[in-house]
Amino acid sequence: MAGVKVHGIPRSACTMRVLATLLEKDVAFELVPVNLMKGEHKQPPFLALQPFGLIPVFQDEDLTLFESRAIARYVAEKYEKQSASLYGSSVAERALIEQWIEVEGQIYAPAGHPIFYQLVIGPMRGVPTDMAVVEESLVKFEKVLDIYDERLGKAPYLAGESFSLADLTHMPLTQYLMNLPKVAPAFHARKNVMAWWDKISARPAWKKVIAMSSP
Amino acid sequence: MAGVKVHGIPRSACTMRVLATLLEKDVAFELVPVNLMKGEHKQPPFLALQPFGLIPVFQDEDLTLFESRAIARYVAEKYEKQSASLYGSSVAERALIEQWIEVEGQIYAPAGHPIFYQLVIGPMRGVPTDMAVVEESLVKFEKVLDIYDERLGKAPYLAGESFSLADLTHMPLTQYLMNLPKVAPAFHARKNVMAWWDKISARPAWKKVIAMSSP
Ligand SMILES: N[C@@H](CCC(=O)N[C@@H](CS)C(=O)NCC(=O)O)C(=O)O
Ligand SMILES: N[C@@H](CCC(=O)N[C@@H](CS)C(=O)NCC(=O)O)C(=O)O
Repeated sequence: MAGVKVHGIPRSACTMRVLATLLEKDVAFELVPVNLMKGEHKQPPFLALQPFGLIPVFQDEDLTLFESRAIARYVAEKYEKQSASLYGSSVAERALIEQWIEVEGQIYAPAGHPIFYQLVIGPMRGVPTDMAVVEESLVKFEKVLDIYDERLGKAPYLAGESFSLADLTHMPLTQYLMNLPKVAPAFHARKNVMAWWDKISARPAWKKVIAMSSP
Repeated sequence: MAGVKVHGIPRSACTMRVLATLLEKDVAFELVPVNLMKGEHKQPPFLALQPFGLIPVFQDEDLTLFESRAIARYVAEKYEKQSASLYGSSVAERALIEQWIEVEGQIYAPAGHPIFYQLVIGPMRGVPTDMAVVEESLVKFEKVLDIYDERLGKAPYLAGESFSLADLTHMPLTQYLMNLPKVAPAFHARKNVMAWWDKISARPAWKKVIAMSSP
């Protein structure tokens, strides 16, 4: 089959980012599962698509792409006119969306991911949780959330008046952290962040992602 | 003065990324120095522009932007028709450029930055070098460079046939690492990476950045 393919697994955070974008944009796609347990992503056929050996990989006819945030941008750009607009309608709007996509990748995820790793990924792989790392990361992550709370007190969405790729890119990690009793209070203590999360996580596309990624 | 302003310091790697983009695009700008030693970036006037307290900050009339890779994208997009094209001429070209910008931010910099921090930034701030971190990071960074070497054996530039934001975004950190006797051999051992570096670092815009950032 030609058309759009996503190589990945729906419960991986980076794959979820791509699925959410495709579902927001009403783009049909085929999901090609990658068996991480068997190390399929470190074998030559997969490495020919993605030399770093990481999911997700995206294909659209003869274009092969990796890096979930780059894939999300491509889908938002190619299908700009279709379904929800995710990527701004002027150079200045686009710029603020890009700013918050970068903040997610450079600040939000580096602060929050170690917590997710220690409490979810590590234990899944048999690595015991290091609570000192969790505590230390949580302090940093709460400082980041303070800035988000301030921002979201001034605008309903990160880049301004409408939902965009800037918000979407935060959803997978936020969903995982929100589910952790250790981290949930940090969100609930910040009312603007919570109001934002309640709005964006109620989107039909996100509900479909959650349904796909549930065991 | 209205027009384009860059708040930062020319020897900071993230500021260099923005300066290189502006110089490639022949955009006039004013550089507004930020005194990091005095902690000016953690004071209210700066925090009003950049709530995370990091340089660079960019202003174009009434648009204020932070995150160097987002600023670079904005400049490349707004001045698309002017001077060197940096951001592709089709959705597919743009996608590959975005892919490699993301690889830089998500893989190349996280692998290489700890080395730069340990050998340059830390000592500058009075933090002694931890050679174990350097050695461990260097092993990871060399694996990343292997993949770059393979890629650059297939195409002269990261995203394909022409110089783009994908290459440019790698330049500040690469310049710093290339200057370190401990790291330079890792580059020199990889001929496609070196051929690429020799080409891109010879660009007039980059030479101007180097001149600006030299003490
Ligand atoms: N920056 C990449 C990250 C990709 C990544 O780390 N993927 C993880 C799953 S979320 C993976 O493949 N892990 C398998 C492994 O590390 O062996 C992206 O956003 O796509
Ligand atoms: N992801 C940000 C990083 C900004 C950043 O880390 N800036 C550094 C200089 S390169 C800084 O302001 N450091 C001062 C500090 O950490 O106190 C960007 O690309 O602009």
